[in-house]
Amino acid sequence: MKDQNRPTRRLQALRRRRRLTPPGAPPGTLIENPDAPHPKIQCIAFGPGGLTETDVASADDVPALADGQTVRWINVDGVSDTGTVQKIGRAFGLHPLALEDIVDAHQRPKVDIYEEHLLIIARMPVGHPVDGNGDTAGAKLETEQVAICLGRDFVVTFQEQPGDAFDPVRRRLRAADGQFRARGADYLAYALIDAATDVFFPLLEVYGEQVEDLENQVVEQPEISQIGRIHDLKRNLLTARRAVWPQREMLNALVRDESPFFRAQTRVYLRDCYDHTIQLIDMIETYREIASGLIDIHLSSVSNRMNEVMKVLTIISTIFIPLSFIVGVYGMNFDPEVSPWNMPELGWRYGYPAVLLFMMTIAGGLVWSFWRRGWIGKDGRR
Amino acid sequence: MKDQNRPTRRLQALRRRRRLTPPGAPPGTLIENPDAPHPKIQCIAFGPGGLTETDVASADDVPALADGQTVRWINVDGVSDTGTVQKIGRAFGLHPLALEDIVDAHQRPKVDIYEEHLLIIARMPVGHPVDGNGDTAGAKLETEQVAICLGRDFVVTFQEQPGDAFDPVRRRLRAADGQFRARGADYLAYALIDAATDVFFPLLEVYGEQVEDLENQVVEQPEISQIGRIHDLKRNLLTARRAVWPQREMLNALVRDESPFFRAQTRVYLRDCYDHTIQLIDMIETYREIASGLIDIHLSSVSNRMNEVMKVLTIISTIFIPLSFIVGVYGMNFDPEVSPWNMPELGWRYGYPAVLLFMMTIAGGLVWSFWRRGWIGKDGRR
Amino acid sequence: MKDQNRPTRRLQALRRRRRLTPPGAPPGTLIENPDAPHPKIQCIAFGPGGLTETDVASADDVPALADGQTVRWINVDGVSDTGTVQKIGRAFGLHPLALEDIVDAHQRPKVDIYEEHLLIIARMPVGHPVDGNGDTAGAKLETEQVAICLGRDFVVTFQEQPGDAFDPVRRRLRAADGQFRARGADYLAYALIDAATDVFFPLLEVYGEQVEDLENQVVEQPEISQIGRIHDLKRNLLTARRAVWPQREMLNALVRDESPFFRAQTRVYLRDCYDHTIQLIDMIETYREIASGLIDIHLSSVSNRMNEVMKVLTIISTIFIPLSFIVGVYGMNFDPEVSPWNMPELGWRYGYPAVLLFMMTIAGGLVWSFWRRGWIGKDGRR
Amino acid sequence: MKDQNRPTRRLQALRRRRRLTPPGAPPGTLIENPDAPHPKIQCIAFGPGGLTETDVASADDVPALADGQTVRWINVDGVSDTGTVQKIGRAFGLHPLALEDIVDAHQRPKVDIYEEHLLIIARMPVGHPVDGNGDTAGAKLETEQVAICLGRDFVVTFQEQPGDAFDPVRRRLRAADGQFRARGADYLAYALIDAATDVFFPLLEVYGEQVEDLENQVVEQPEISQIGRIHDLKRNLLTARRAVWPQREMLNALVRDESPFFRAQTRVYLRDCYDHTIQLIDMIETYREIASGLIDIHLSSVSNRMNEVMKVLTIISTIFIPLSFIVGVYGMNFDPEVSPWNMPELGWRYGYPAVLLFMMTIAGGLVWSFWRRGWIGKDGRR
Amino acid sequence: MKDQNRPTRRLQALRRRRRLTPPGAPPGTLIENPDAPHPKIQCIAFGPGGLTETDVASADDVPALADGQTVRWINVDGVSDTGTVQKIGRAFGLHPLALEDIVDAHQRPKVDIYEEHLLIIARMPVGHPVDGNGDTAGAKLETEQVAICLGRDFVVTFQEQPGDAFDPVRRRLRAADGQFRARGADYLAYALIDAATDVFFPLLEVYGEQVEDLENQVVEQPEISQIGRIHDLKRNLLTARRAVWPQREMLNALVRDESPFFRAQTRVYLRDCYDHTIQLIDMIETYREIASGLIDIHLSSVSNRMNEVMKVLTIISTIFIPLSFIVGVYGMNFDPEVSPWNMPELGWRYGYPAVLLFMMTIAGGLVWSFWRRGWIGKDGRR
Repeated sequence: MKDQNRPTRRLQALRRRRRLTPPGAPPGTLIENPDAPHPKIQCIAFGPGGLTETDVASADDVPALADGQTVRWINVDGVSDTGTVQKIGRAFGLHPLALEDIVDAHQRPKVDIYEEHLLIIARMPVGHPVDGNGDTAGAKLETEQVAICLGRDFVVTFQEQPGDAFDPVRRRLRAADGQFRARGADYLAYALIDAATDVFFPLLEVYGEQVEDLENQVVEQPEISQIGRIHDLKRNLLTARRAVWPQREMLNALVRDESPFFRAQTRVYLRDCYDHTIQLIDMIETYREIASGLIDIHLSSVSNRMNEVMKVLTIISTIFIPLSFIVGVYGMNFDPEVSPWNMPELGWRYGYPAVLLFMMTIAGGLVWSFWRRGWIGKDGRR
Repeated sequence: MKDQNRPTRRLQALRRRRRLTPPGAPPGTLIENPDAPHPKIQCIAFGPGGLTETDVASADDVPALADGQTVRWINVDGVSDTGTVQKIGRAFGLHPLALEDIVDAHQRPKVDIYEEHLLIIARMPVGHPVDGNGDTAGAKLETEQVAICLGRDFVVTFQEQPGDAFDPVRRRLRAADGQFRARGADYLAYALIDAATDVFFPLLEVYGEQVEDLENQVVEQPEISQIGRIHDLKRNLLTARRAVWPQREMLNALVRDESPFFRAQTRVYLRDCYDHTIQLIDMIETYREIASGLIDIHLSSVSNRMNEVMKVLTIISTIFIPLSFIVGVYGMNFDPEVSPWNMPELGWRYGYPAVLLFMMTIAGGLVWSFWRRGWIGKDGRR
Repeated sequence: MKDQNRPTRRLQALRRRRRLTPPGAPPGTLIENPDAPHPKIQCIAFGPGGLTETDVASADDVPALADGQTVRWINVDGVSDTGTVQKIGRAFGLHPLALEDIVDAHQRPKVDIYEEHLLIIARMPVGHPVDGNGDTAGAKLETEQVAICLGRDFVVTFQEQPGDAFDPVRRRLRAADGQFRARGADYLAYALIDAATDVFFPLLEVYGEQVEDLENQVVEQPEISQIGRIHDLKRNLLTARRAVWPQREMLNALVRDESPFFRAQTRVYLRDCYDHTIQLIDMIETYREIASGLIDIHLSSVSNRMNEVMKVLTIISTIFIPLSFIVGVYGMNFDPEVSPWNMPELGWRYGYPAVLLFMMTIAGGLVWSFWRRGWIGKDGRR
Repeated sequence: MKDQNRPTRRLQALRRRRRLTPPGAPPGTLIENPDAPHPKIQCIAFGPGGLTETDVASADDVPALADGQTVRWINVDGVSDTGTVQKIGRAFGLHPLALEDIVDAHQRPKVDIYEEHLLIIARMPVGHPVDGNGDTAGAKLETEQVAICLGRDFVVTFQEQPGDAFDPVRRRLRAADGQFRARGADYLAYALIDAATDVFFPLLEVYGEQVEDLENQVVEQPEISQIGRIHDLKRNLLTARRAVWPQREMLNALVRDESPFFRAQTRVYLRDCYDHTIQLIDMIETYREIASGLIDIHLSSVSNRMNEVMKVLTIISTIFIPLSFIVGVYGMNFDPEVSPWNMPELGWRYGYPAVLLFMMTIAGGLVWSFWRRGWIGKDGRR
Repeated sequence: MKDQNRPTRRLQALRRRRRLTPPGAPPGTLIENPDAPHPKIQCIAFGPGGLTETDVASADDVPALADGQTVRWINVDGVSDTGTVQKIGRAFGLHPLALEDIVDAHQRPKVDIYEEHLLIIARMPVGHPVDGNGDTAGAKLETEQVAICLGRDFVVTFQEQPGDAFDPVRRRLRAADGQFRARGADYLAYALIDAATDVFFPLLEVYGEQVEDLENQVVEQPEISQIGRIHDLKRNLLTARRAVWPQREMLNALVRDESPFFRAQTRVYLRDCYDHTIQLIDMIETYREIASGLIDIHLSSVSNRMNEVMKVLTIISTIFIPLSFIVGVYGMNFDPEVSPWNMPELGWRYGYPAVLLFMMTIAGGLVWSFWRRGWIGKDGRR
C-alpha cells in the first residue's frame, strides 16, 4: 500500500513545487491557468457599528462593497485562477510583484513593504490537526502559503486551499462584543498572523509524542521500521522549521520596522506573537536534536544486539567444533587389525568413557574461559 | 517497572506541555479551569522598619494590605486557578498579556517591559535536589515556570507548584539585620532570580558525576543499558539548556536596559547573577559535548569487542573446520577390499599416526599464520 | 563505461579549474592564449524607439555602433581569447582588474564597484536543464561564470560558453511592447541576473526528485550503489550552494548599496531577485540536510539487515552444530565387542529412536529459547 | 591501578567543583571554613628606587608596609581561609562581590571593573609541565583560578595552590635592570596575566605530540585502548578550551575598554598577550578537530579489519563446509549389500580417487570465484 | 619506509613548533641562538629612475645604502639568527614587539599597526609546488611565516627559509617597464602579499585532484589505506585553512583600515587579493566538506561489503550444515541387527536415493527461501 500511494504523493508534491513562472519571464508575470477552479471569495466588512458578511460570486463585484464601513476583509481561497487574483489586485491597488508572489505559492514567509500596502507571506500546515488526534501523525507534512495584504482600511488574504485556520478569527469578529471590530485593519492582520502561527502548536505536540514513543522503543527494541519513522519525523520537523524560522524573522521585522500600517498599540500584540514563534522554534530544534541523536542510538543499539548474537554463535561454535573434530577422529576407518598403530584406542577397555571425559573437560574449560571474559552470565547479563 | 510508569509520566508531561489557550483565541485570554485547586497566597510586607507575614485566604484580600509598609511581596503557588490570577493582576495593575504569559506555563525565560511593571519569566528544575543526594539523578528533568512581576513597590511571584526554592530568600528577609529589608523591591526581585538560577548548580553537579561514571564505564565495559542512560542524560542537559540559555539573555537584557525598575546599585548584583548563568551554560555545554562523544565511543568500543569475538570464532573455525574435513575423509566407507585405489591409507601400518601428524602440522601452520597477523598474543593483547 | 569517462571528465574539470594567471603575476595580467577559439560577439542596441541586432565579426567593430541609440548590450560568448576581451574592455573603459576577473573564470559571484562601471559576476549551471527532463540528473554539476559589466548606457556580458540562458531576455527585448526597451541599462542588467538565477530552479527540482527517490529506497532496500548516488547528489548540491550563496550576497549588496548605476525603481526588482536566491538557498540547504541524513540511515539500515543475516546464521548453527556433534559421537568406531564400556548404546534395542528423541528435545529447546529472545517470529518480524 | 585512583580523583574533582556558597545565600557571602590551612602571603614592594620582599605572617600585617614605595604586590597562596581573604580585602578596599569571586574558585576568566580596582580572573593548568617532559601527559587536566586585583598602586594576586608560574616574573623584578620596576602596577598585572597564559604553550605541545602519536597508531593498529586515550585527550582539550576561550575575551575587553587602570603604553603589551590567546585557541581547535576525526577513523579502521576477519572465516567455511558434507555422505552406513541402489560408489574401483578429484574441483572452483571477487590476493592485499 | 621517516618528521615539526620564548619571559625578548646559520640578506633599492640589487654581507651594512633611491626592499632569509634581526630592526626603527613576532615563527597571519611601520605576518606553504606536478601530494603540509614590515620608504621581509615565492616579484621589478618601480613601497608590499597568497592555488589544485581520486575509489573499492589518505588530506586542508583564514582577516583589515601606509590607489589591489583569499577559503571548505563525507561513505561502503560477505557465509552454512547433520545421522553405528528399531533405513532398498532426494529437497527449499528474501540473484545483484 505504501509503495502504491508514494508515487502519487510525490507527483502531487512535484506539481505543487514546480514554479509556474518559467526562468527568464518578466517580473510580475501571472501565467494564465485555464483549468484552475474558480476561487471562493468571501468579504467581511466591519467597523465599530456592525459587520456584513458577503460571499462574492466574481472578482468584479468586490470593489462595489466599499461604502460606509471602516474595514473590509476579503478572503480568497485558491490562487491558481490568476485572472481573479489580478482583478482583486487592481481593485485594491496591489503591486504587480506582490501579485506574482501571491500566485507563486512557494515563497518563504516574509514581509514586503510597498507604498500602498504591506505584503505578509506566512505558511501554515496543510490539514492542520487542531484537535491533536493525530491521524496525520505519520503523514508527510506539507505547508501552504497564506498571503496577507494589509492596506490602510482593508485586509486581503489569499489561501492556497480552503481551510478553517481563520475560523476562530471569524467567530471572534462575529461575536458582538465590539472590541475587536473597533481595532482596525492592522489588528485583524495581527489576529490572522497569530492564527496562522498557533496552528503549529498542536502539530508539534503530536511530533513531541512521536519523539517520546521512538525514544522508548529505539533503546529497548531497535527495529528497522523505526529508522523510517525517525527519518519521516526529521523531515517533517525540517519542513516545520522552514516555515516557522522565516516567520519569526518576518514578525521581528514587523515589530521593529516603523511602517505606518501597524500602529504602536498593535505592535505589542505582534511582540507576543513573535514570542510564540520563538517558542515554536525552541520546540522544533529540541525535537530535531533528539531525533538526530536517535539515529546514532539506533545504530549503537543494533550493534550491541549484533554483538550478543555473535557471542552466542561464537560460544556454540567454539565449544562444539573442536568436540566434533574429536568424535570425527574416532569415526575414521583405519584398520586396527592391520597394525597396532592404527587407532588402538578403539579397542581399549575404557576408550569410549575416556574420550567422553576428555571432551567434557575441554567443554568445561572453554565455558570457564568464556565466563572469565564476561561473555556468559558473569554479571547478570549475557 | 520502567514500562509501567513511562506512559503515566508521558501523559503528565503531555498535560503539562499542552497549551491552555487554543489557536486563534484572542490575546490575553485566560481559560477558566473550574477543577483547578485554589492556590496558596502568601504576602510578605517589609521595609526598613519591620516585616509582616500573612497567609492570604482569597485573592480579594490582597490589596487591603498596602498601607504604611514600603514593599509588598505576594507569592502565589499554583497558576491553574485563573480567577485568582486575574484578581491579583487587577489589584496590581498587571497587563493582560502578562497575565496570559503567567498562566500559560510554557514560556521561555524572558523579560517583558510594560509601563507599570516588568514581567520576568524564569524557569527552575522541579524537585530541585538542593542537597545533591541525587535520588532524582536518573529521572527525567522537568522545569517549572516562575513569573516575577516587579513594580515600583511590589513584587508578585507566581510558581506552578509549591516549592522551597524561595525559602532562603524568606529566611534572609526574616533575619533582622535590616540591610535586605532596606534595599527595596528591585533587590528582592534580584534575590529571587538569583535563587531560581542557583538551584541549577546542585543539579549540574549530579549530572557531572553521571558523566564521569559513564565515561569510565563506556570505554571499559560497553553495555546496552549505557546507551539509554547517555540518552537520558543528554535529554536532561538539553532541558536544562533550554531553561538556562534564555535566562542568560533575560539577565543580559536586565543588566543593559535602562528600565527604571532596576536601580543602578542593584544592577551590579544582576551582573553577578548573569555571570552565574554563563557558568551554568559553560558546564551544560561541556557535559553535552562529552555526552555526545560517549555515543561514538560506545559504538567504537562495541565494534572493537565484536571484532575480538569474531577473531575467536574465526580462529577456532579456521583451525578445526579443515581438520574435521580430513577426519571426515578417513571416515568414508569406500571398500578397500574391492580395489587397491579405495583408501589404501586405511590399511597402512602408520596411516593413523601419519594423519595425526599431518593434522598437527596444519593446525600449527594456521596458529603461526594467526600469530604473524597479530590475531593471537603477539603484543600482549589478544 | 563509468571508469572510462571519469578521467576524461576529471581532466576537463582540471583544465577548467586551473587558473590562467600564474602566482606572482602582475595584477590585470591577461595571458595570451593563441589557440583560443574566436568568441561570438552579438550587439543589441535598443531604446524606446526601436532595436537593432548585429553579429559583430571582430572586437574592433564594436565601438562604431554607438550612435543615436540609448542602450547597447554586447554579449560575448567565450572568454579564452583575451585579445578580444581586451579590445572590448578598452572600447567601454573597463578597469584592468575587471578584465582579469572576466578572463579568469573561477570567480565567486560578487559585485565590484569601479568608477565607470559595475562588474557583476554570477554563476549558472552549465547545460541547465530548463525543461526538467533531467537527462543531466546523474551527471556532475558544473557552473560557468557570467560577467555583467553595467555602465551608464551599456551592458557588456561575457559567458564562458555559448548558451541559451539569456534567450528569454532577448525575446522579451524583441517583443515590441516597448516597456522593457524604455527601462534602460540597469533594468537589462537586472533581467540578466534574474535569468542567470532562475535557471537554478529547474535544476533543484530535479535534485528534489532524486532526494525523494533515495529516501524511499534507502530505508526499504539499502544497496551499495545508493551510497555513490547520495555522494554525487551531495556534491552537486555543494556546487550549487557555492554558486548561489555568494550570488545572494552580491544581490544583497546591490540592493543596499547606493551606487548610481542602479536606479531606485530597478532596485525593487533586485529585491525580488534577492528573494529568489534566498528561496534557492533554502531548497539547497534542505536537500543537503536530508541527503546527509541518508548516509546515516543507510548505515543503520545495512546494520539492521546484517543483524538479520547474522541471526539466521546463528540460529541455524546453534541448532545443528550440537546435533551434529551427537551424531558424530555415535559414528565413532569404538569396538563394543572388546568391552561393555565401549558404546553400549549402539547395541540397545531402542538406542536409535532414543537418540533421535534426544536430539529433537535439544532442537526444540533451542528453538523455544530463540523464540523467547524474540529472534524468531515472536512479533511478526523475524 | 586505574580503577583504584579514579574514584579518588573524582572525589577530589567533586570537592573542588562544589561551590562553597549554597543557592539562595546573600551575595558577597564568604563561608567560614575553620579547617582551611593558613595561606602563605608574600609581599613585594618595589619602585624605581629598589625592591623589598617580605613574607607576611598574618593578614593583619599587610597594610603597615605601604610607606615610601611606589607599588606593592601581595601574593596569597590558598583562598580557602576566608578570614584572611576578607582582611586583605578590607586593607585594599576590594569590593565584597570581588571577594566572593576570589573565594569561589570556579569562575570563568573575566574582568570586572569596580570603582577602586579591577578584578581579573584567569585560569592556568595545575601542575603545569613547563619543561614539556610530560609525565602529566596522560593525566586529567585541571585548571586553577588566579585572581588578580589591580588598583592604582597595588596588585593583589590569589592562587588556589602554591605554584611557580609567577616565579619568572619575580625573577625579572629582582633583576636589577630597573626597567620593569619603573613601569608601575599595571605593567606588573600584565606580566602576571602573560605568565598565566603562556604556561598553556608547553601543555599544548604535549597534547600535539599525543595527537600525532594517536594519528599514526589509529590507522595502522586500531586498538581499544586508543579510544580511551582519544577521549581523555578530547576532554583535556575541552578543559583547556574552557580556560583559554574566556581568557581571550577578558584580554580583548582589557585592550578595548578605556578603564583608567591600564595605561595606553601597557595596552600594547596586552594586545600581544591577546595574540597569544588567539594562537592558543587556534592550536586547541586544531587538535580538537583532529581528535574528533580520529574516533571516526578508528571506527572505520576497526570495521575494515573486521571485514578482513570475516573474509577469512567465510573463505575457509565456504570451501570446507561443502567438502565436509561430501565426505559425510560417503561415511553413511547404508548397506550396499542389501540393494544395488545403496551407495554403489563405495564399491567402485575408482570411487575414492573420483571423490577426491570431485572435491578438488569444487575447492578450486570456489577459490577461483573468491579470487575473481577480489577476496583473495588479486591486487596484493588480502 | 613510512615508519622510518615519520618520527624524524615529527621531531622536526616539534622543533619548529616549539616557541623559542619560555613562558614568563619579558616581552620583546629575543633569545640568542649561537648555532643559527647566518641569514642571507638581499637589498633591492629602486625608484622611477632605476634599480640597484646588492647582496649584503652583514646586517651592519644595511643602513648605508639609503641614499638617493626612493624605496628599499630588504629581504632576509632565515630568522633564527636573532642578532641580525635585531640590527636590522634598529636600522629601520622596528618596534621590539614586532621583532619578537618576526623571530617567533608561529604567528597567525595578522597585521599590527605601529607608529613607524606596519607589521604584516603571512604564511605560505613550504616547498610550494608551483608547477602542480605534485610530488609533494602525499606529504604533510607545513607553512612558513613571512613577515613584511612596511614603512614609508622601505619594505623589510623576513622568510624562515630561502624560497622562490618572491622571485616573480623580483622579476617584475627588474623588468624595465618602470610602472612597478614608480608605485612605491606600499605597492611592493601588496605584490609580496599577493605572491604569498597565490602560491596556495597550485597546492589546492593538487588537493582537489586527490579529493576526486578518493571519491572514485572509496565507493567502488573501499580499502584501509584510503582512511589514512583521507586523514592526511583533511589534516593538510586544516593546515591550509589555518594559514589562509586569518590571511583573509588580515587583508580585510588592510582594505578597511585607514592607515597611512597604504594609499587609496593601492587599496584597490588589496581588495583583489582579498578576493583571492575568499576564493581559496571557498575551495578549502569545499574539499574539507567532501573529505569529511568520504569517511562516512567509506564506513557505509565497508559495511555493505561486510554484509555481502556475511550473506555468502550464511547461505553456504545454512544450506550445508543441516545436510551435514543428516549424513551424520546415517553415519551412526547403531547395530541394525540387534533390533529392528536401530536404523532400519540403512537396510531399505531405496534408502540411499531417498536420503539424497530428501537432502536435495531441503537444499532447494533453502535456496528458494534465500531467493525470495532477495539474498541471491533476485535483481541482478548478489
